[in-house]
Amino acid sequence: MYQIKEIQALVNKEIETRKIGREPFSLYDPINYTLSNGGKRIRPILTLMACNLFSEKIDQAIDAALAIEIFHNFTLLHDDIMDKADIRRGKPTVHKKWNENTAILSGDAMFIKSYDFLFETKTDKFKEILQVFNNTALEVCEGQQYDMEFESRNDVTEQEYLQMIELKTSVLLAAALKIGALIGGAKDTDAECLYDFGINIGLAFQIQDDLLDVYGDAKTFGKEIGGDIVANKKTFLLIKAKSLASKKEKELLEKYLNKKEITRKEKVSKITAIYNNLNIKLVADKLIADYYQKAIISLNKVSVSPEKKQELIKLTERLLKRIN
Amino acid sequence: MYQIKEIQALVNKEIETRKIGREPFSLYDPINYTLSNGGKRIRPILTLMACNLFSEKIDQAIDAALAIEIFHNFTLLHDDIMDKADIRRGKPTVHKKWNENTAILSGDAMFIKSYDFLFETKTDKFKEILQVFNNTALEVCEGQQYDMEFESRNDVTEQEYLQMIELKTSVLLAAALKIGALIGGAKDTDAECLYDFGINIGLAFQIQDDLLDVYGDAKTFGKEIGGDIVANKKTFLLIKAKSLASKKEKELLEKYLNKKEITRKEKVSKITAIYNNLNIKLVADKLIADYYQKAIISLNKVSVSPEKKQELIKLTERLLKRIN
Repeated sequence: MYQIKEIQALVNKEIETRKIGREPFSLYDPINYTLSNGGKRIRPILTLMACNLFSEKIDQAIDAALAIEIFHNFTLLHDDIMDKADIRRGKPTVHKKWNENTAILSGDAMFIKSYDFLFETKTDKFKEILQVFNNTALEVCEGQQYDMEFESRNDVTEQEYLQMIELKTSVLLAAALKIGALIGGAKDTDAECLYDFGINIGLAFQIQDDLLDVYGDAKTFGKEIGGDIVANKKTFLLIKAKSLASKKEKELLEKYLNKKEITRKEKVSKITAIYNNLNIKLVADKLIADYYQKAIISLNKVSVSPEKKQELIKLTERLLKRIN
Repeated sequence: MYQIKEIQALVNKEIETRKIGREPFSLYDPINYTLSNGGKRIRPILTLMACNLFSEKIDQAIDAALAIEIFHNFTLLHDDIMDKADIRRGKPTVHKKWNENTAILSGDAMFIKSYDFLFETKTDKFKEILQVFNNTALEVCEGQQYDMEFESRNDVTEQEYLQMIELKTSVLLAAALKIGALIGGAKDTDAECLYDFGINIGLAFQIQDDLLDVYGDAKTFGKEIGGDIVANKKTFLLIKAKSLASKKEKELLEKYLNKKEITRKEKVSKITAIYNNLNIKLVADKLIADYYQKAIISLNKVSVSPEKKQELIKLTERLLKRIN
C-alpha cells in the first residue's frame, strides 16, 4: 500500500512533467499556470488510492487521475470568470492575469487536455470509465448552474442546496474514487460503494466548508472569517437558519442581510449571533457526522481488508479536520 | 450511395430527436437553441459521406457525425462571446439572448455532450477516432487563439494567416471526413487522403469566404458586402494586398484602414479599389483553384470507384460556389 504522501508526490511530479510546451504559448501558458498553482490534489489522490485498494500497480491509474485533476482545475478556471473571482489560491485568476477571452479559450483547451489524459488509460473498463467521467462532468456543470441560479433566489430549500453541492462537489470526488477502483480491477459493487463513500464525504466536506467560514480558525482556514456572510452567500448555515428562525429572528436576519451601511465586523458578528441562538453549528456538525458515518458504512462494504482502507480513512479525517 | 439531400435530412432528423430535455433547463435550453438554429450541417454530412464511400451502413457513423456538429456549434457559441458577436444565423447569440455566464457554462455542457455522442460510436477504431477528435479540437482552439492575436498585430504574414485558417476551419472538416472514413472501414491511407482532401477544401472555402465579403452578391452571400473591410479584419485579401502594394498604395491602404471619419460605403469602395488595382481577386481565385485541385488529387487517391466520389465532389462544388 502507498501512503498519502507518496501518492501526492507522484501526482505533483507527473503534473510537473507533463506541462504543455507548444505554440501558441498564449493558449497553453494559462493552463500550466493553473495546474502548477498547487491545491491539495485531493481528486487524483483519491483515484490512485482507490486503485491501490485493488492493485499495487497504481501507475495504471495516473493518466485518469491527472484527467480528473485537470478537469477540476478547468471548472475552477471557468467558474472564476462566472463568479468574477480575482484570486485563487493566493494568486490572480487567469481572467485577471490575462483576460476573459484567454480564460474562456484556455479553459476549453484545458478541458480537451483532460480527455487526452483520460484516453491514455489502459484498462478493459475503458468505455465505462469514459461514461463515468462524462456523466460527472455534466453534473458538475449542472451544479454550477444551480449555484448561479440560487444567487438570485431567496427561497432555496435545504434539499435544493444539498442537491446543488452534491452536483458541484461530491460527484467528482465520487467519480475520482470509482474510476480509480475500476482501473484497479474492482468489482462493480465495490466501485459503487466507493462512489457512495465519495458522495457522502463530499457533502460532509462542503458543509464543513460553510461552517469553517463562520466558526473556523482564520489561521488554519486560510481565509478571513465571515466571507460568506459578507457576500450574503446562500450557505447551509443561512438556509438552515432561515428555516429554523422564529418570525422575529427571520426579520433580524433579513435586516442584516439587506443592510447596506454596516461594517464587515458588525455584519459578521450580528449574523453569527443569530446562528448561535439557533444552534446552527450543532445542527451542521450533526449533519457532517451523519454523512461521515454513511461514508464509512459504504467504505466498510468494500470487499478488501480493513487495513487497506486505513490510508483512505486517514485522508478523509484530515480533510474533515482541514489539516494539510 | 446516399444523396446529399438524404444525408442532410438524416442529420437534421437526428439532431431534432436527440434534444436534451432535462433539468436544469436553463443549462440545456441554450444548447437546444444553438443546435436547432440551422446551419448547413456540412461537417456531419461529410462524416456520413466519407463513411458511405466504404460502407452502406451510414447509421454507424451518425453518433460521431453529431459529435462533430455539436463540437462545431460549441466552438461558435464560445467564439461569439470572445468576438462579442450579437447575431448568428440571423438570431441573437446565446450570450445576448441569455447572458455571458450562461453562454460559457452551456457551452461547456455542450462540449461534454459532444463527447457523449462520440463515445456511443461502435467501431474497432474507437481509440483512433477519439485521438483524431481530440487533436482536432485542440487545434481548433489554437486557430481561435491565433485569430484573436492577429487582431492586435499588423505584421501577420500570408503563411501565418493560412496556418490560422487551417487550424480554425480546415482541420475540423478534415477530421469529419477521416472519422467517417475510419468508421466505414477505410484503410488508414484512404482515411488520410480524405483528411488531406478536407484540409484543402477548408482552405479554399475560407479564402472564398474572404473573397465573397468583398466581391460576393449580397443576396447569395446572405450578409452585407464589405463587413470585413469595415471591421479592419485581417483577411487573405488584406494581407495579400499589403504584401503586393507599392509604397504609395500601402500608405493609401493604411490611410483608409485608420480613418475614423469615413462612411461605410466610402471605406468599402476605397479599399476595394486598391484590391482591384492589385488584382487581388485574381490572386485569390488562383489560390482557391490551387487548393481545390490539390483536394481533388487527394480524393482521386482514395481507393474506391470514381462513381462513389461523385456526391462528395458535388457537395464540394456547391460549397465553393456557395449555393445552398
